[in-house]
Amino acid sequence: MTSEQTRSDGRAADQLRPITFELNYTKWAEGSVMAKFGDTHVLCNVTVDERVPRWLHQSESKHGWVTAEYAMLPRSTNDRLQREQRWPKGRTMEISRLIGRSLRMAVDLRRLGMRQLIVDCDVIQADGGTRTAAISGSWVAAQLALQSLIAEGKVSKSVFRYQIAAISVGIIDGVPLLDLAYDEDVRADTDLNLVMTADGRVIEVQGTAEKAPFSWSELNDLLKLGRAGIQKLTELQTAVLPVDATDESDTV
Amino acid sequence: MTSEQTRSDGRAADQLRPITFELNYTKWAEGSVMAKFGDTHVLCNVTVDERVPRWLHQSESKHGWVTAEYAMLPRSTNDRLQREQRWPKGRTMEISRLIGRSLRMAVDLRRLGMRQLIVDCDVIQADGGTRTAAISGSWVAAQLALQSLIAEGKVSKSVFRYQIAAISVGIIDGVPLLDLAYDEDVRADTDLNLVMTADGRVIEVQGTAEKAPFSWSELNDLLKLGRAGIQKLTELQTAVLPVDATDESDTV
Amino acid sequence: MTSEQTRSDGRAADQLRPITFELNYTKWAEGSVMAKFGDTHVLCNVTVDERVPRWLHQSESKHGWVTAEYAMLPRSTNDRLQREQRWPKGRTMEISRLIGRSLRMAVDLRRLGMRQLIVDCDVIQADGGTRTAAISGSWVAAQLALQSLIAEGKVSKSVFRYQIAAISVGIIDGVPLLDLAYDEDVRADTDLNLVMTADGRVIEVQGTAEKAPFSWSELNDLLKLGRAGIQKLTELQTAVLPVDATDESDTV
Amino acid sequence: MTSEQTRSDGRAADQLRPITFELNYTKWAEGSVMAKFGDTHVLCNVTVDERVPRWLHQSESKHGWVTAEYAMLPRSTNDRLQREQRWPKGRTMEISRLIGRSLRMAVDLRRLGMRQLIVDCDVIQADGGTRTAAISGSWVAAQLALQSLIAEGKVSKSVFRYQIAAISVGIIDGVPLLDLAYDEDVRADTDLNLVMTADGRVIEVQGTAEKAPFSWSELNDLLKLGRAGIQKLTELQTAVLPVDATDESDTV
Amino acid sequence: MTSEQTRSDGRAADQLRPITFELNYTKWAEGSVMAKFGDTHVLCNVTVDERVPRWLHQSESKHGWVTAEYAMLPRSTNDRLQREQRWPKGRTMEISRLIGRSLRMAVDLRRLGMRQLIVDCDVIQADGGTRTAAISGSWVAAQLALQSLIAEGKVSKSVFRYQIAAISVGIIDGVPLLDLAYDEDVRADTDLNLVMTADGRVIEVQGTAEKAPFSWSELNDLLKLGRAGIQKLTELQTAVLPVDATDESDTV
Amino acid sequence: MTSEQTRSDGRAADQLRPITFELNYTKWAEGSVMAKFGDTHVLCNVTVDERVPRWLHQSESKHGWVTAEYAMLPRSTNDRLQREQRWPKGRTMEISRLIGRSLRMAVDLRRLGMRQLIVDCDVIQADGGTRTAAISGSWVAAQLALQSLIAEGKVSKSVFRYQIAAISVGIIDGVPLLDLAYDEDVRADTDLNLVMTADGRVIEVQGTAEKAPFSWSELNDLLKLGRAGIQKLTELQTAVLPVDATDESDTV
Repeated sequence: MTSEQTRSDGRAADQLRPITFELNYTKWAEGSVMAKFGDTHVLCNVTVDERVPRWLHQSESKHGWVTAEYAMLPRSTNDRLQREQRWPKGRTMEISRLIGRSLRMAVDLRRLGMRQLIVDCDVIQADGGTRTAAISGSWVAAQLALQSLIAEGKVSKSVFRYQIAAISVGIIDGVPLLDLAYDEDVRADTDLNLVMTADGRVIEVQGTAEKAPFSWSELNDLLKLGRAGIQKLTELQTAVLPVDATDESDTV
Repeated sequence: MTSEQTRSDGRAADQLRPITFELNYTKWAEGSVMAKFGDTHVLCNVTVDERVPRWLHQSESKHGWVTAEYAMLPRSTNDRLQREQRWPKGRTMEISRLIGRSLRMAVDLRRLGMRQLIVDCDVIQADGGTRTAAISGSWVAAQLALQSLIAEGKVSKSVFRYQIAAISVGIIDGVPLLDLAYDEDVRADTDLNLVMTADGRVIEVQGTAEKAPFSWSELNDLLKLGRAGIQKLTELQTAVLPVDATDESDTV
Repeated sequence: MTSEQTRSDGRAADQLRPITFELNYTKWAEGSVMAKFGDTHVLCNVTVDERVPRWLHQSESKHGWVTAEYAMLPRSTNDRLQREQRWPKGRTMEISRLIGRSLRMAVDLRRLGMRQLIVDCDVIQADGGTRTAAISGSWVAAQLALQSLIAEGKVSKSVFRYQIAAISVGIIDGVPLLDLAYDEDVRADTDLNLVMTADGRVIEVQGTAEKAPFSWSELNDLLKLGRAGIQKLTELQTAVLPVDATDESDTV
Repeated sequence: MTSEQTRSDGRAADQLRPITFELNYTKWAEGSVMAKFGDTHVLCNVTVDERVPRWLHQSESKHGWVTAEYAMLPRSTNDRLQREQRWPKGRTMEISRLIGRSLRMAVDLRRLGMRQLIVDCDVIQADGGTRTAAISGSWVAAQLALQSLIAEGKVSKSVFRYQIAAISVGIIDGVPLLDLAYDEDVRADTDLNLVMTADGRVIEVQGTAEKAPFSWSELNDLLKLGRAGIQKLTELQTAVLPVDATDESDTV
Repeated sequence: MTSEQTRSDGRAADQLRPITFELNYTKWAEGSVMAKFGDTHVLCNVTVDERVPRWLHQSESKHGWVTAEYAMLPRSTNDRLQREQRWPKGRTMEISRLIGRSLRMAVDLRRLGMRQLIVDCDVIQADGGTRTAAISGSWVAAQLALQSLIAEGKVSKSVFRYQIAAISVGIIDGVPLLDLAYDEDVRADTDLNLVMTADGRVIEVQGTAEKAPFSWSELNDLLKLGRAGIQKLTELQTAVLPVDATDESDTV
Repeated sequence: MTSEQTRSDGRAADQLRPITFELNYTKWAEGSVMAKFGDTHVLCNVTVDERVPRWLHQSESKHGWVTAEYAMLPRSTNDRLQREQRWPKGRTMEISRLIGRSLRMAVDLRRLGMRQLIVDCDVIQADGGTRTAAISGSWVAAQLALQSLIAEGKVSKSVFRYQIAAISVGIIDGVPLLDLAYDEDVRADTDLNLVMTADGRVIEVQGTAEKAPFSWSELNDLLKLGRAGIQKLTELQTAVLPVDATDESDTV
């Protein structure tokens, strides 16, 4: 079997879905981006909050913070999610924590000053890979929010640290595939999410055997496929940003 | 002072904001509509659930149900809403209950059969009048969902009961104004929401003195202004619906 | 059919139930009133709290606040209410918010100073119209509490703003009826609650179609019937208050 | 110092406060009693629920159940209780459990059949000894509820098991005192609650050193004082019950 | 029947189970003791917290506090406890409050200074009498924690107030038995827990009729049996403590 | 700097802490193991529950389930954990889900039949690597529980699927280290947890940049170091199991 046969939308095994970042999607947030990975649509709003959480206030080191909240609209999925349902709670928190951790690597927290970026990722429509769309889109939205802080003279351009993006990879019938859609995710034996920087460093690896343990060589294949996908993705991010923002991230 | 001076966007006192209903905004819901009243954007998704809630199962009368959940995205507003904040909880529930009550008048519950419509109204961007956009948009989304049930032969066309829409009116500096934007809402002495049918019947009146009690004649002025606004609004709803759906709602 | 036939207790369509306000029902509260509208008994306790809520402390305008909590004893109704039951939660909050909003119109918040009135309305026995008994009784209890503050020299007599009362009206078999008892409430096609001042201004209108939308002329009939009921009710309130308190409310 | 000097209301050390049980205080409950121990007023409503809790349904032994819920109205006390306050939660549950346990001794659960008595004790006004008023009043209310079941032919008269009552005792300045009011409760070194049957058996003893451990002889004095108080209390209970109910409890 | 026949492990009616206190069971807590009463194993960890709770901070009297939390591991019992299960919540809180109250008698709170002892009692394995093992073990752990404070010169030796211990007694087939194991607890008609000081004073008596009310003479027999058990138990506590700690508690 | 200098306990960079598995630590659980990785002590209790969760009952495929709950005793850490504290909630759920997912790979769910293994991992003392000790110890406890099911004839020996174990690796000052203790965990730039089978397959990889992104070659070094550690760990597991259990896991 070949990988082309595997994918319902005819993509090559190492091909991303059509990916777009729509800037300034809503008008209130300091940074607002609708990230679309195929039929997965995640609204990423970044708020600049001039207050830091209490625990940070009490710590000795003076620096800012980045936190994130991820949520799915009830009917973002094929079957409506009941808000009371048990299982997504743990999953939701895991993803929120992952996004926050990842975005903190994008920003020089000391240079951010005593303020906080709050990242809200709301899944409008889900079709696999919501967390990777959320991280990749939030990085763009965070750039916009930081740009406005720079324009106001509140922080310097050196606040930018790393450009980051995330992608999922998985194995179906022995074939490693990039950027799984939901129907692929369900069939995959293995699911691995990778968060990396534009210059090839690793921020997070999360690989999980879904149906059966996977071999050491499969692990290595997945990691390489993901690394290549991240590379393309960061180019798409850079392309949509206004020149000023791009300049900054280039100098990282 | 004239009413034109009152409104920041130059509207006449009895003029609606630009209003659009974008059908099939998301792909999973049986009925999906993005309703925009100016800068107020509410995503209305209607789910057909073949199960009815338990209390209905145990009741003797065999009929369906319509329920609604209203929520605001954290950064749909100028100041980010903390999810833990106390005060919006009561408000959120009130609006959810209002939407559910209103939409139940749109549907013949007995002819709906033992199934349930679940209406999810998520405010993507808020600029005043979110509940009226939610009700007006949800009616359109419910039509789409019922159309699909009719197409599947599960319910008859007689399931449609009333076409409904909602609008807000208020008084600023003594002048009654239609369809308040947020900056107007804040300044208004009085706030009244009206839910009505296309043929001029009343489903819900909710008038509240914000700063000072209002007079009996002001109450009457507000009601009349709202009634006229509803009339225009229902024409906009009808215009966007596919012919089949329009036919049905005409025969109510 | 005539309205006399409609009412199980033989009242005329525009007649209130026997209404009493028993002052100083409990000994701890600064103002305590047991309000009885027929078999509906609501204990209204007003607490003077010398602290204001935090959000008020942080606001620039220096003024006091009035807040309210409404609750039903588990066996205040024919079927015992389980405390865990879902549905009354939203209703309970709506009524609490309505009482608080209404009572804030009764008091000059600036002249109240940096303190808070907390209104607790506990339904001891329910037979329809609990929210209207709660509002009408709480106004009397608030007068008592304010009297004690005036007597202590903490606030001036000008703290009184409007005398307020509330009543329900509804339509059964086409006949508009005043002050519905529970068995009437269940049968009504339409239910409207009105909160007004003694001098005929409107504070809140909440009308809801229960079984079918109602016509424009029915809305007007209900409003007029309610206005007349409020007039009688405010006379009953005034009659029970000690002379001093009455004097004040007259001068509003 | 003599005990007469100790008590603010001039009672003798072994004297109860004025105690009354007002039957049928509310109209919906199967048994409703307002129990007053001086200024402590507790409304005791007993509901007959024809369903038993699930765990009982699944157990092999076929018998009924008695459960209780105790709560204080927010302004039943001198300082208003915030509903969110932490500390009363544990205390509230302890008292609920104590009332339920005690009342289960009053009823032959096997003869009650597959049904449940739900006892709601709501403190309208608190001045010490709320749990003892609640238990003593609930026994009277339970008799009323069982009388109605007997009258309907659903249970036999043998459903009555023990007449029960409860009283508090404490030590102030070395003097053992019966039925403490709140100002005494605060000053007491020791607090002991006793639940007993009319024929002198013990159902519950709960003694707690408040300021310092107490001696063995003090423990014995307290127990004897409480036993004598229970004796008088059960006579007051019997006096208010209709003859039929009294007959039954005599034959226990 | 004789009491020897009653007990599955062949103990005499007035005999304790094998009791041990293992000091310094974990390495982080200021005082850590594994208390074993037969197969009942409770880990008692005492934390010295240099902050006092807020309510204490705001009170005028400057003194410390002792608080306790009791919990059972899910599989400490024969049937696994579901964390969500309703019934143990009230019981858990009752026992936490009992432990806290009891331990506060062991310490001179004024001499403790503005700090707090937090007692965590976690039941590793349950076989009856978990609360008595928790109290008796926590006293030992608190001694260790106070010893460390004395060694650091933060408090004086006079901080010790009373040596305390707790034991359960019950009646099976008419025979009073000391220190019930779980299988005995289940069969007992009556269950009484006693918390006392080493010098014979009473801190807490909690007696509950389980199946039927008990007589006055049975109450007295239980109290005496418990008092004798406490005497033996306090000797076992003293034996395990290092000499310094023992000295202190002797001088109380 | 060499790796030997890095470690406070003098271990080599690729050396495990002293690891023991104490079988049958508590008496009630079907499988009970105290797992110690140095000063990290985790009690792993496995319950055989003959009921499966509801969602599994309703699914078509007939098979069993494995679920896990992880919790830390309040004083298992240097600073006492407040039960109410916010931050550990997400972490606790993540680890519970990780343990459950991992253990499900150890068991043939179809051959387990319609029953459930519930794994409770309670951290008695924490010093880094609690999740890896929990997973490694739970596998041993699950073997014991399954052995008892096999002995009862309820499941066949083929219920065993994979032997699993988990270990942490991290980078300090550029040196990859195996099985981090808490003081090392705090200093590490990178933290990676690996769950694998005894025959070298991967179940879960979770790598997180703590202070800065790590390079591709560092990722590979960490993975290899972890794989070697897992190998030693599974030998320690096998050594403690009774022969029968070992036999089974060999045949996987």
